[in-house]
Amino acid sequence: MGTQRDPGSPPDEAAEPGGSPLDPSERTVIRPMESPPAHNPTDLGPLGIPAGFNAQHAPLGAFFSFTCGHPGTPGGLGLEIGQPADQNVFVGVKHGRRTDDAPTTALPFYADRAGLGAGAADFLGEQAVEQAGPGEQHAPQKLTPYALNQITRHYGWATDLWATGDFTFAIHTPFAPLPDPATAAPSALRDALLPAVTAELTVDNRAGRETKTAFFALGFAKPGARTLPTWTAGHNRLRRHRLGFAWRRELGVAGELHDVTDPQRPAALDAAFAFQRWTVDDGLTDTVNPVHQLGSCPGIAFEVPPGKAYTLRLALGVYREGVATTGLEGRYLYTRHYGGLNDVLDAALERAATFAQHAKQLDEDLAQSALSAHQQFMVAHATRSYHGSTQLLDIAGDPFWIVNEGEYCMMNTLDLSIDQAFWELDRNPWVVRNLLDSFTKRHAYHDMTRDAEGDEHPGGVSFCHDMGAHNQFSPPGDSSYEMAGLTGCFSFMTMEQLCNWVLLASCYVAKTNDTAWLTQQAPLLSACAESLRHRCDEHGVMRRDSARCAGGAEITTYDSLDESLGQARANTYILVKTWAAWLGLDLLHRTRTGGTLPDHHADAIAAFVPTCIDEHGLLPAVLEPDNPGFTSRILPVVEALVYPAWWLRQLNPDDPRRAPLKHALASPMTDTLKHHTRVLLTQPETRNLFADGGIKLSSTSNNSWMSKIALFLHVVRDVLHLDEDPAIAETLENADQTHVQWQAVGSAYWACSDQIISGVAKASRYYPRIVTAALWMDEHVLAPPMQASDAQSAADLTPKIRITQPVPQPK
Amino acid sequence: MGTQRDPGSPPDEAAEPGGSPLDPSERTVIRPMESPPAHNPTDLGPLGIPAGFNAQHAPLGAFFSFTCGHPGTPGGLGLEIGQPADQNVFVGVKHGRRTDDAPTTALPFYADRAGLGAGAADFLGEQAVEQAGPGEQHAPQKLTPYALNQITRHYGWATDLWATGDFTFAIHTPFAPLPDPATAAPSALRDALLPAVTAELTVDNRAGRETKTAFFALGFAKPGARTLPTWTAGHNRLRRHRLGFAWRRELGVAGELHDVTDPQRPAALDAAFAFQRWTVDDGLTDTVNPVHQLGSCPGIAFEVPPGKAYTLRLALGVYREGVATTGLEGRYLYTRHYGGLNDVLDAALERAATFAQHAKQLDEDLAQSALSAHQQFMVAHATRSYHGSTQLLDIAGDPFWIVNEGEYCMMNTLDLSIDQAFWELDRNPWVVRNLLDSFTKRHAYHDMTRDAEGDEHPGGVSFCHDMGAHNQFSPPGDSSYEMAGLTGCFSFMTMEQLCNWVLLASCYVAKTNDTAWLTQQAPLLSACAESLRHRCDEHGVMRRDSARCAGGAEITTYDSLDESLGQARANTYILVKTWAAWLGLDLLHRTRTGGTLPDHHADAIAAFVPTCIDEHGLLPAVLEPDNPGFTSRILPVVEALVYPAWWLRQLNPDDPRRAPLKHALASPMTDTLKHHTRVLLTQPETRNLFADGGIKLSSTSNNSWMSKIALFLHVVRDVLHLDEDPAIAETLENADQTHVQWQAVGSAYWACSDQIISGVAKASRYYPRIVTAALWMDEHVLAPPMQASDAQSAADLTPKIRITQPVPQPK
Repeated sequence: MGTQRDPGSPPDEAAEPGGSPLDPSERTVIRPMESPPAHNPTDLGPLGIPAGFNAQHAPLGAFFSFTCGHPGTPGGLGLEIGQPADQNVFVGVKHGRRTDDAPTTALPFYADRAGLGAGAADFLGEQAVEQAGPGEQHAPQKLTPYALNQITRHYGWATDLWATGDFTFAIHTPFAPLPDPATAAPSALRDALLPAVTAELTVDNRAGRETKTAFFALGFAKPGARTLPTWTAGHNRLRRHRLGFAWRRELGVAGELHDVTDPQRPAALDAAFAFQRWTVDDGLTDTVNPVHQLGSCPGIAFEVPPGKAYTLRLALGVYREGVATTGLEGRYLYTRHYGGLNDVLDAALERAATFAQHAKQLDEDLAQSALSAHQQFMVAHATRSYHGSTQLLDIAGDPFWIVNEGEYCMMNTLDLSIDQAFWELDRNPWVVRNLLDSFTKRHAYHDMTRDAEGDEHPGGVSFCHDMGAHNQFSPPGDSSYEMAGLTGCFSFMTMEQLCNWVLLASCYVAKTNDTAWLTQQAPLLSACAESLRHRCDEHGVMRRDSARCAGGAEITTYDSLDESLGQARANTYILVKTWAAWLGLDLLHRTRTGGTLPDHHADAIAAFVPTCIDEHGLLPAVLEPDNPGFTSRILPVVEALVYPAWWLRQLNPDDPRRAPLKHALASPMTDTLKHHTRVLLTQPETRNLFADGGIKLSSTSNNSWMSKIALFLHVVRDVLHLDEDPAIAETLENADQTHVQWQAVGSAYWACSDQIISGVAKASRYYPRIVTAALWMDEHVLAPPMQASDAQSAADLTPKIRITQPVPQPK
Repeated sequence: MGTQRDPGSPPDEAAEPGGSPLDPSERTVIRPMESPPAHNPTDLGPLGIPAGFNAQHAPLGAFFSFTCGHPGTPGGLGLEIGQPADQNVFVGVKHGRRTDDAPTTALPFYADRAGLGAGAADFLGEQAVEQAGPGEQHAPQKLTPYALNQITRHYGWATDLWATGDFTFAIHTPFAPLPDPATAAPSALRDALLPAVTAELTVDNRAGRETKTAFFALGFAKPGARTLPTWTAGHNRLRRHRLGFAWRRELGVAGELHDVTDPQRPAALDAAFAFQRWTVDDGLTDTVNPVHQLGSCPGIAFEVPPGKAYTLRLALGVYREGVATTGLEGRYLYTRHYGGLNDVLDAALERAATFAQHAKQLDEDLAQSALSAHQQFMVAHATRSYHGSTQLLDIAGDPFWIVNEGEYCMMNTLDLSIDQAFWELDRNPWVVRNLLDSFTKRHAYHDMTRDAEGDEHPGGVSFCHDMGAHNQFSPPGDSSYEMAGLTGCFSFMTMEQLCNWVLLASCYVAKTNDTAWLTQQAPLLSACAESLRHRCDEHGVMRRDSARCAGGAEITTYDSLDESLGQARANTYILVKTWAAWLGLDLLHRTRTGGTLPDHHADAIAAFVPTCIDEHGLLPAVLEPDNPGFTSRILPVVEALVYPAWWLRQLNPDDPRRAPLKHALASPMTDTLKHHTRVLLTQPETRNLFADGGIKLSSTSNNSWMSKIALFLHVVRDVLHLDEDPAIAETLENADQTHVQWQAVGSAYWACSDQIISGVAKASRYYPRIVTAALWMDEHVLAPPMQASDAQSAADLTPKIRITQPVPQPK
């Protein structure tokens, strides 16, 4: 993948070409218009990772990404797909005038015929183009890609900047709270839902001696490219020339050129031109026919004379008109506020400069957080993939919020929703209420339960795994995912989704204090409590599977993991989540009535958990002695501590609802969980760290979920404060570093991914859920640290009970 | 590809399994409900070709095909694509009940992992399915494909029937004139524009001893499959159960099961079921979860008990809602008359039985024509690919007729329109008027011309090559295809398209006598005449290229051929087409005014052509002695004789406009052309036949256009009557036979294709234009045969002029 510049060398030097195939005399020294901050902690050099990974540059709610960054593979504009798109992305310069026979170099965002190997400076750029018309030969692109060691990449929260010796290319994806369509002004919604991202391609030729020709082009794999008629914006001396290209009715790119030689008054220029041919070279060189409508490779280009510095502002947008879904008939809500693709592109160009500024501000917000550089990378990377999966529809006049499940495109997978809720509740809590209501109205169900003998018992309400997939809503009461008769992947998640809905509601109310909504939910919340009781024994342990399983067994969100986390019944991860759900129900009850919830099982669980430890003070993953999961040790058993801790943070210091939460968090169960975690993170023979230092969620599985690791790390650091132990702090820092490698190397093509096996993204790729890492930006939530038996050694702990006796049955 | 049954063996015997991998005792003797006619000349066995070629089963005007037939490759439902779609098509039976662990056999319409070789009876059916969700393994399809020698295929004009030892599968694509939306009743348009085809899957298990389970399923490569809710049609005892599946909002399949054991009263059944899993086997076998919404392979299946014969009627349809195009914003006109996909599928099932009957009638019409079996095959095959390329839009309330150019999807390529006009004018002349007007309003232009020295001269009106591509209309006055500065492919076709528009108008008026329309065209027709004059010398030979070529040179429709047919200037193919255009202008002038057109050049051309022959009486392809095409000999030089001959056929015997046409056809030019053709078809050292006996349009190119061969053969047989010479008749019959091989073998994947190189379809594939072969169904148009010097030998002809002197320049 090429070598990186030395950590610590300033960006100005790093931007010098490191191994150019061109004559150095033909190169200019780069002076980016907006130099990246000298010590930007998300510079990739200091992170020790190669720059060549994909990022999903996405607006909010459009289920659309502009993806690029991975060398040698296509990407580009992707609509409603859970993977990088299939366009070659050409961003580069010809080292001469457009018609010159001069070398042309480009960022390596395109596929070559033979594959792009390490240090591919000798890549010849020959490439098969999709046959688009009669007589087309497989025209080779006359391009040389930059090697990664000729590139510096700065990866902020909302800026992704690539600097070569010849130009900079920055993509801006600022984000902001999404106003509630029920109350927001149309203009605010228009602004918030703009389905486009912006970019800037800058060539500083002030020190150059020859004209350079820069270009941004896409090589489409499917026919349907077209050049847009040129238009103007503004008037009089502010009149600006805009041009671009599109793919069919829905995807488009527009550009506007500025002379930034005098940064105080960048003037608009008419010098940019559009082209459309089968190759960039033909588009630049053939001035008689820059546009051939059969061409698969449209682009925008401009010449930069010596002494000048020009920036091409770019809009990369989408407009999906009409009904986009089945089952429920949804249109994109942005279609209320934009007339079509041209309107979108025009609005995006109008805001490109603002976007760049806003992105810079967000970059600084993250850079100035208390997070390490590795943690910052994870937050920045996760934010992008999350946005690319979001989709805001208008269904029968009402907003309908959807997060698509990455590569699987399942809609509103509830076990993702709960992990992503922290992000949304900090910005626009109404989308969480929207989600809660969508589940209640259409994707809830009532079941019976079955005991070990197969006898049926009452069950109750629960919620579907998801609402459909790939824009196809499932029938009411169904998900796209769940099937009967299974014990593994695709089985029901009845118990976990019940907890998830309750926790989601609790988080929403803790954040918003929306008592009007809460009052409406009272009957449902009672039903949820009853449904929980029917599934669990008197200790609060789940003992009955839903009869919907038809003889199979419920699973958890860890669907492809072994019993340690895959099986829901008697699982300690589910047990502590059930504890949190009871605390949530109690919190909601107190909010509504001022009194405590009768017959809730949080205390029972808190009392029971410490009795379940083994001779080392560790908790089995599954409380069934004959189950393989009984010997497994899992870290996510502590995960649900996050909920009371997070609720506490939302409540005022004098709120009476704080006391029971503080009490719950200070229970001996927390001690047990803290000890359990400390041992798993520190014992030399640990099976809960990978050889590379990454967190291994289960001692018996090599499959690890990055989003769940993020939650775990948050609990370990900000709830259990185990990082006060320098050894553990170092272990966690090493893990953070490794997790960056997993993403940037092991998931280089797939942008941000969740399921990592041996450091490589193998499933749940191009995934939204890792945004839960933004929890790391929260301050420490419990001060002073809990007075638990922090220094207690494993040997001091006497097992209270060994789970070898028959377990009690639920009442 | 397996062996075919012996020619002449009756279908009943042929339907016996020829080499089944199954125990013969498990097989039933097939008794198709509607036996194919015993001597159906389009049975493929007698044609000596393998059954394994794709056919485009398509309705009218929907730019949609259901394509299948080629072994080992995907196909299925294709919308707006110039190639077979990407679904595996599974049509077959499990030899047992749905839950049995029994062998399952299917037609070979799907891809296997390793590719399907010749005689692939041992194909194991393991197949990679697109990853559609978490944990999906690449589930193998547990299917065995029938070998081609176990299949009999009957290929009629509107029925494509596959018979195995276990079932028959018949696809019905009847067609009828398309009413003019300006005057037609909405119900007539609804009927004519139904965007669906129908099929019947029949299992006759009356002699069987075990239940069989039949299925029709599609394995989608892209996510978005869904099962349709089951509905009912009819009422009381006619109540019928309907079910199906869809892909997103636009593609769908619905089915209705009938008990045809008593053919007099086939009863509707509720026994069919829908499934959706990753494999057919899971869909049949897992009765608990027949539907998994993440499954990529939805289908419809039914069990047939012993003693019963059931038919599943199938609707295979499309509904593309909203604006489908750019440049002009067009919606499918059928969306005026259908509410959505379900409406389409429901209407198609309602008409499935009628479709089958109508298809049978059309099969008989073709079978009872005077055409040979090989000619009938070509007509049937071409008809299907033509329909698959048709697209009727509603643009701003008006109908807009489009034929897409096969794999290239260029819209209304004018050099195709003229060849396809005979087909349309016999059915619905209004679409030709619609085409003419579309060109006039938006895709005409005025140019200057340039002489050999590059000096500019007046030009005039002409017409674009096309109106856009892939649903993207080009700007007014432009095509998607043409570029400046070229001498080959993608250059302008100004002269030929001018002739084509005039000829199209002439054909339209000759057919319809639409004098109101003609009167409106008077100024344009004058401009066309002037434009023709400006491009040609006093002999009518094109001598000046359009200035739009910017120094390049015009080409003809034979864009990828050498100068012999690729160069327009001084080309004798264009020269005779110009002659026909002048005759057409004269015809139109006479129609409008009763008088002859002043200053028309038909006679000049007719007089000049005989002066251009060489010492053997043959015409050079290009009348430029230094041009490589000067030595080429081309058959299409006779092509344009078709126009006056066809016009004559449209006019009443006493119509005064017949005389000049008869006079023109009886000119010495016709003698010259006839001699030229006879020599090229008969001389032993001929370079105008391929080694396989196929027609070679140019002596100097191995590229041959099937549509143009069809026109040529029509002229040779029905205008020049050269087939009265038994040797030539045999040559032509051999050629017909070879051309069938080109399509069914050389273009097996691509359905009907135009450009054939060495017997293999290399370009212009999946193509509409071959429908011009339907001209063969016309009766002989000139009786008695012309009294030309039929018996004259080459030696008797004295060259009148040798084109070695400088050629005169146009006035």
